[in-house]
Amino acid sequence: MQKFEHGGDIKSVIRENNLNEIMDFSANINPYGLSSNIKNAILADLDNIIHYPQPNAEDLRKKIGETYNIASDKIIVGNGAVEIIYTLCHILKPKNALIVSPGFSEYERAARSAGADIHYAMLDEKLDFNSPMRDIIVNIKGNDLLFIGNPNNPTGTLYMLEDMELLIEHAENNGCFVVVDESFMDFIKTSEAFSVLPLVEKYHNLLVLHSLTKFYAIPGLRLGFAATDHEVLDPLYAAKDIWNVNSLAQAAGMAALDDKKYQRRSRTYTRTEINYLYEELSTLDKLKVYEPTVNFILVNISKTGLTATQLREKLLKYNIIIRNCANYPGLDENYVRFAVRTREENDELVDALTEILE
Amino acid sequence: MQKFEHGGDIKSVIRENNLNEIMDFSANINPYGLSSNIKNAILADLDNIIHYPQPNAEDLRKKIGETYNIASDKIIVGNGAVEIIYTLCHILKPKNALIVSPGFSEYERAARSAGADIHYAMLDEKLDFNSPMRDIIVNIKGNDLLFIGNPNNPTGTLYMLEDMELLIEHAENNGCFVVVDESFMDFIKTSEAFSVLPLVEKYHNLLVLHSLTKFYAIPGLRLGFAATDHEVLDPLYAAKDIWNVNSLAQAAGMAALDDKKYQRRSRTYTRTEINYLYEELSTLDKLKVYEPTVNFILVNISKTGLTATQLREKLLKYNIIIRNCANYPGLDENYVRFAVRTREENDELVDALTEILE
Repeated sequence: MQKFEHGGDIKSVIRENNLNEIMDFSANINPYGLSSNIKNAILADLDNIIHYPQPNAEDLRKKIGETYNIASDKIIVGNGAVEIIYTLCHILKPKNALIVSPGFSEYERAARSAGADIHYAMLDEKLDFNSPMRDIIVNIKGNDLLFIGNPNNPTGTLYMLEDMELLIEHAENNGCFVVVDESFMDFIKTSEAFSVLPLVEKYHNLLVLHSLTKFYAIPGLRLGFAATDHEVLDPLYAAKDIWNVNSLAQAAGMAALDDKKYQRRSRTYTRTEINYLYEELSTLDKLKVYEPTVNFILVNISKTGLTATQLREKLLKYNIIIRNCANYPGLDENYVRFAVRTREENDELVDALTEILE
Repeated sequence: MQKFEHGGDIKSVIRENNLNEIMDFSANINPYGLSSNIKNAILADLDNIIHYPQPNAEDLRKKIGETYNIASDKIIVGNGAVEIIYTLCHILKPKNALIVSPGFSEYERAARSAGADIHYAMLDEKLDFNSPMRDIIVNIKGNDLLFIGNPNNPTGTLYMLEDMELLIEHAENNGCFVVVDESFMDFIKTSEAFSVLPLVEKYHNLLVLHSLTKFYAIPGLRLGFAATDHEVLDPLYAAKDIWNVNSLAQAAGMAALDDKKYQRRSRTYTRTEINYLYEELSTLDKLKVYEPTVNFILVNISKTGLTATQLREKLLKYNIIIRNCANYPGLDENYVRFAVRTREENDELVDALTEILE
């Protein structure tokens, strides 16, 4: 297994295993599916791919600003949020990067590519990965860059705004730049209790990342943004070309942010289904299921007698693909992650697990 | 006028000038238009945007290798060729960059963003910008990175393979890395007489850039590649995420490289129309028209009594947008560039110019 393997590479999985179709529980995509409004916006804009994208996605950037209540001149739009992680690391050239772990592996890969030494602030499994914020804060000193996901992938850990502010303040006092990745925040109804976006103008060591591909189910299109009031914003713009967000992603983003019904309904749908899946999985004695906060569930399978690699292989026979979490620092072959799917697919997963674990 | 303004930002032009539709002579896009095979490939793949793109566009990379006869492990695929320019500069961190000028402005912008001092090897207007290669070579010493377009935008300058090899060899002897941008090479029927792609395995200071958006008329989708046998390839992969090419661009690229009929016919069409436009423009005494090699024409308007800014404004009244070349180092308000369009549009351009210059 490659160190930086991800979920979602379904083309390879289908080909290598000679499958016809799969149920993809490996990628954390909104199970409510693609909004018809987004699809129609793409179709309406399709003939415009003969023109260059609008430079720096100006219209979309304005709409993001209105939607999330941030001045649009503090926003940069990315070819996926992850593009911004790389560009930021190229510019900041961090010497020591602290990563709240287990966390999204691209933080580490990007920081390494820019020459950083990597340090981990490990979330405590004994607390179901819900470590108190002070356990993270004590690790800051000596690091010039910190990455934290909130909600955190793959653990689902979710910190209150007050806790996050403590972290950012402490980092500021220690000369540490903080990247808060809120790529799953749109799944949370009461996001104002958790999101640090309102702190962007208060703390100048803060950059908030936000993917639009997970919640709007458009990872193939690539779309994300970052908000910051740090002087790094100008170099971020200078370090990329002005057409980095393709025109269909721009059209999709405009439609997505206007699609209030999709937002509301898919949030409710995801919450309902993740609760359902959590309850169902919890009935299987051999699984330790960590309480989810958004659209995925981390599961400890150590009591099953199977490794994550083995369980993944067995589920492939049911056309089900899951995420082996062995390559997350802090996790190992005892962990897998399930993204929530539709009711029918969730039932199929639980049925397959029941058979396998009998 | 912003230093790095480009052609093709038609959304802004239409809005700012309150136009309904425009004829875009400012962006160098294939006038034969979008291939129906490419469009159908996108439509067939549209529902797959709910999945992540194939990592590193593996299938497309193989097809590029087969099409251009390069080992696919020497290729990297980009979110537009220009993304690769930026990533390359972040990695190489050149101290002194030599740019064959006038040339595509992103070379300079990317090199500057990585901290380089910029130097120009100026093509000689007195020779219609067809400077002998030795005039470029004498500038190499002291530079660690060199950018040259072949065919060159906006001058149309086109060097033979033998000349290019002299340049690359001389650069190698002087410790200078060479980027040859062949983004317009697909428009040339006899490209084997000019393209340095076969030299990639021979010279390890060489990276060949190749856009797929100009020839296939898909600049909105973003797609390009680079080929190199230099050790920079691994860092290039490490310095970006694996999903940088969106899934629709991958689908379009696969269809494009298979579409031999489109390739042949649009090459013939472009050549026919550019010759037509060149002949027509040459009948206007006040214009000095440099001989085109691909799908655009550089024009000197100094005898018209108009600046490029003024001519551009006047043509906007005819719903025509052209490229003011004043922001190219080595050019000024005496230069404009026309991309070739359809016969009807080319006639409209010539008619408008005739009226304006009467």
